[in-house]
Amino acid sequence: MRILITVEYNGKNFSGWQIQPSLRTVQGVLTDSLSSLLKQNIVLHGSGRTDAGVHALNQKAHFDYNGNFPIERLPFAINTVLPDDVKVKKAETVADDFETQFHAKKKTYRYGFYLSRISRPLYDGFYAQLPYPEEKFDLNKARKALLSLVGTHDFTAFSNVGRPVKSAVRTIYSAELEKTNELVSLTITGNGFLYNMVRIIAGTIAEIGLGFLPETSIEKALVSLNRNDVGKTFPPQGLTLIDVTF
Amino acid sequence: MRILITVEYNGKNFSGWQIQPSLRTVQGVLTDSLSSLLKQNIVLHGSGRTDAGVHALNQKAHFDYNGNFPIERLPFAINTVLPDDVKVKKAETVADDFETQFHAKKKTYRYGFYLSRISRPLYDGFYAQLPYPEEKFDLNKARKALLSLVGTHDFTAFSNVGRPVKSAVRTIYSAELEKTNELVSLTITGNGFLYNMVRIIAGTIAEIGLGFLPETSIEKALVSLNRNDVGKTFPPQGLTLIDVTF
Repeated sequence: MRILITVEYNGKNFSGWQIQPSLRTVQGVLTDSLSSLLKQNIVLHGSGRTDAGVHALNQKAHFDYNGNFPIERLPFAINTVLPDDVKVKKAETVADDFETQFHAKKKTYRYGFYLSRISRPLYDGFYAQLPYPEEKFDLNKARKALLSLVGTHDFTAFSNVGRPVKSAVRTIYSAELEKTNELVSLTITGNGFLYNMVRIIAGTIAEIGLGFLPETSIEKALVSLNRNDVGKTFPPQGLTLIDVTF
Repeated sequence: MRILITVEYNGKNFSGWQIQPSLRTVQGVLTDSLSSLLKQNIVLHGSGRTDAGVHALNQKAHFDYNGNFPIERLPFAINTVLPDDVKVKKAETVADDFETQFHAKKKTYRYGFYLSRISRPLYDGFYAQLPYPEEKFDLNKARKALLSLVGTHDFTAFSNVGRPVKSAVRTIYSAELEKTNELVSLTITGNGFLYNMVRIIAGTIAEIGLGFLPETSIEKALVSLNRNDVGKTFPPQGLTLIDVTF
């Protein structure tokens, strides 16, 4: 039978999702623990990779299992052996042809950064630092620019080279920006994201809000498809995979 | 001259505030860095100790310095050598007889916990876990009980033995409880707190909200002065020293 699990992790001490020899990865730790608990060699398929330092509130992954372990008890059983920085929140049986990666219809990410010249120990590992006073950030301007991302576009300009894809066309369903004092949080939902796309969107929005990039940068880049028209790739620790829906 | 500094730290990897031989403490790390930067043996006096694992958003400390280093540049200079989990947010000169500990008029602490049977990697180190469904927590009942703490009382029942004090009478100026889904946050301001007092108040409020202690426990304990009438001492990681004012 095929099992779908929902996983939360703090990416700080992981070399990302994807299993790699002699590195501590989320897929690696989960695969070892599941194989040990279920007494089978488990092959785990995630909804997508996350880079080193990136967190997940609800990552999804599936695996096949032939045995009698009661699936409703899987989270409690596996969590007793998993480390503090990764836990299984839910396990459910799905159709035998269900594929976590290919059947994902929507993904939501959140990117958080803070505006402060002093780096902040209590935000370390969860928010990127922008070393400018918070008054310098124009929330309305950033929000307006963000709206031009929503819809179906070719996002070539918002991707880093290294992973060629057949098509860079994606649909963004919603993109919202919230600011509470020095903290800024971007929440974005789409049918899929290119490599580093959310981190580049966060960098672009931040630079527009700070006045380092013109307000029209996003509109322009969606036509030019030129990486140079948009902002920096923001660091991984600000990024959290919030949800994947099918 | 006497210098007052405002310090933020993540308590996770510190053995508390107070300097101790061969342990990594906040006071120890700050003393070493300040002494090295200012080329003098600096003696640092905090507004009070925090235990291992406890965080601070604005801890205050003072020291005496005789030299020419420009004080307004101290935060930037010291932060380049301090580790990521402790930073100096502000430095200012104060009167020569100013004492951080004795002149503190108000302290504010926040205690955070979450209600979930599954432990949550993204809350680890910042919130205590209560392994119950969030629906079980009666916010109104907990808030009502919390109100009876406000005012001037003998808080003997809310202290753990080990540090005898002349008087256990303290004044609580305000105490507020917020709940957002599974997260509960207690913010409390008083003229001072006994050892473990906030952690015991958090434990008591949590147990009242969950129905494990009667609503009248706090009123009763303020008269009985009996530690057994109140709740458990909650773990350190949920506690943050928010501010100290003079």
